[in-house]
Amino acid sequence: MEIHSDVQGIRLALELAARGMFTTAPNPRVGCVIVKENQVIGSGYTQPAGHAHAEVQALNDAANKGYDVAGSTVYVTLEPCSHHGRTPPCADALIRARVARVVAAIADPNPLVAGQGLARLEAAGIEVACGVLEAEAREINIGFLSRMQHGKPWVRMKSAASLDGMTALHNGISQWITGDEARADGHVWRARACAILTGIGTVREDDPQLTVRAIDIPRQPQRIVIDSQLQISPHARVLSGGGTWIVAAQAHPAREKILRDLGNEIIVLPNADGKVDLPALMLELGRRQINELHVEAGFKLNGSLIREDCVDELLVYLAPTLLGDAQRMFNLPVLESLEQKKNMTFHEVKQIGADLRILARFI
Amino acid sequence: MEIHSDVQGIRLALELAARGMFTTAPNPRVGCVIVKENQVIGSGYTQPAGHAHAEVQALNDAANKGYDVAGSTVYVTLEPCSHHGRTPPCADALIRARVARVVAAIADPNPLVAGQGLARLEAAGIEVACGVLEAEAREINIGFLSRMQHGKPWVRMKSAASLDGMTALHNGISQWITGDEARADGHVWRARACAILTGIGTVREDDPQLTVRAIDIPRQPQRIVIDSQLQISPHARVLSGGGTWIVAAQAHPAREKILRDLGNEIIVLPNADGKVDLPALMLELGRRQINELHVEAGFKLNGSLIREDCVDELLVYLAPTLLGDAQRMFNLPVLESLEQKKNMTFHEVKQIGADLRILARFI
Repeated sequence: MEIHSDVQGIRLALELAARGMFTTAPNPRVGCVIVKENQVIGSGYTQPAGHAHAEVQALNDAANKGYDVAGSTVYVTLEPCSHHGRTPPCADALIRARVARVVAAIADPNPLVAGQGLARLEAAGIEVACGVLEAEAREINIGFLSRMQHGKPWVRMKSAASLDGMTALHNGISQWITGDEARADGHVWRARACAILTGIGTVREDDPQLTVRAIDIPRQPQRIVIDSQLQISPHARVLSGGGTWIVAAQAHPAREKILRDLGNEIIVLPNADGKVDLPALMLELGRRQINELHVEAGFKLNGSLIREDCVDELLVYLAPTLLGDAQRMFNLPVLESLEQKKNMTFHEVKQIGADLRILARFI
Repeated sequence: MEIHSDVQGIRLALELAARGMFTTAPNPRVGCVIVKENQVIGSGYTQPAGHAHAEVQALNDAANKGYDVAGSTVYVTLEPCSHHGRTPPCADALIRARVARVVAAIADPNPLVAGQGLARLEAAGIEVACGVLEAEAREINIGFLSRMQHGKPWVRMKSAASLDGMTALHNGISQWITGDEARADGHVWRARACAILTGIGTVREDDPQLTVRAIDIPRQPQRIVIDSQLQISPHARVLSGGGTWIVAAQAHPAREKILRDLGNEIIVLPNADGKVDLPALMLELGRRQINELHVEAGFKLNGSLIREDCVDELLVYLAPTLLGDAQRMFNLPVLESLEQKKNMTFHEVKQIGADLRILARFI
């Protein structure tokens, strides 16, 4: 394959980065392409955490193919790291390989280290450039960037509703408003998340497994249940196999013991009202390296998360139907003026089967 | 301009037909292109009712430019008429002009006359073809086709709502949920309609003019108000200038006289419940040559029209906002099972300014 421009090089690197969509967490999804005399001589993308980063993958790929990378141009979707994590700094590997030029789509998002990888390369005499297809590069690591910049995950709330905004009948029936394709698509969004969060209400009503089943992935997202009073049944399917995080607003040693003995973890995070402190939970999830948090909850918890400004994005599937007098999407208060409304922008709209998928972001 | 295929010819004819979007009613919007040796030698589109149809316009255009149309191919978006209406049959004009071939996008929709225009041409030795870009040709005359086939207008109901399906706050505030671009776009849909319908509730609350203001058009759509008890104020803005049709469920001679003296017309159409018979009204509007009916009403009348299967299409503008506990879009009953839901298909989705415009059709 030939590369004749920086945009072409970064675009190919982004395609590679996307291959790590379900595997790199908590690391970012990074792709790297090494080009010499317009030819791609090596490429790679981030492997599961603890293994080689994209740059080292690409360098190894070129070496394995017998190419000398000295004098080449390296396209990478995120500024090469300059620190020792579980692997040595990628910037040093590029310097050792004597590449001539490094083009990064975006800088390292962590304000404390941003630019240091590129600076290190430049100090070693390598030509550097940054800022190619930035918007796309940010999208693919939207969760990692949120965690680095704000210390909390990118929170995506999924909802399925009729065109008139209803998610269930008053008698509770909600399966299925949207079609098969939309439900399968929802599993792809679950799969790319580090964690899936729901509330005790949904656990009681639907007893969801909260796992990814429609696509084959090497790891299941972390399961999280908000359960202020620790009322969850030990037999709830969301606890099957253990490992679920249960977030409560008060300690309850006896119940906690039963749940812990099943392999689950209890996080007690009360606010002044005796409910779970949702903004504090988001920071806690950031500390626990959750990049993208996928919320599939009900009317009440959805409303609380939106009211407390814990949601970055709505992933709404709208079915081509009307339900009329039924259950609304989110428990939000009565407004007195339109100035009080929650404002968003439509980020993307796509038809999925017979339904519409709308990504809307709060502003 | 050169035409090398039937699809090209019909596409150009459709573009011409669209120029009659705001002017041809109650006639269909038809475009016609005459091609000889791959050159367009004449073209035209339907003029306001009583004036020349598209075919005659195109024949005149070619004659005015000094072309001989004998032996040419004629592309027309609707089967040429074979009957004497306010103008003589177009089929006869084409026969007299000795054209060689006529390609129609779709047949005349009226089941009683369908195919007669083409048959007449064929009998005269002209080669005919029908069925090119049919879907597009049907879209542009969706109202005319509905009236010809079902005796009633194509009913398009406009609504503006938040992403969570709310059209107003509980205190009645609804101006403005959607943005300027969406409101201007709404006027284009008003303009293409033969009539705009609202209810007495909207007249009382918003006192709308129900006119097209955002774009310049040669005629205003017919205004219609559903007002079962004839309670409308003679000072309502929808009556300004007179000519409005007021649909009641009972006679009220004194009130009727006042309204008639202002130049308005009263239509009394009760059903067994003492309300306006909405399905009967649709047939009456068909008789009155209303092709496309644009509905801009409130929660109650919208709900009644949908419940009584009087609506073909929803034109919904969704704003990127959440209103929470507020006014729903349509007054529809509580359902007991999802089988009872009103089903549609999403026909088209487009971003208009910051809002989404969704066209959904009942099935």
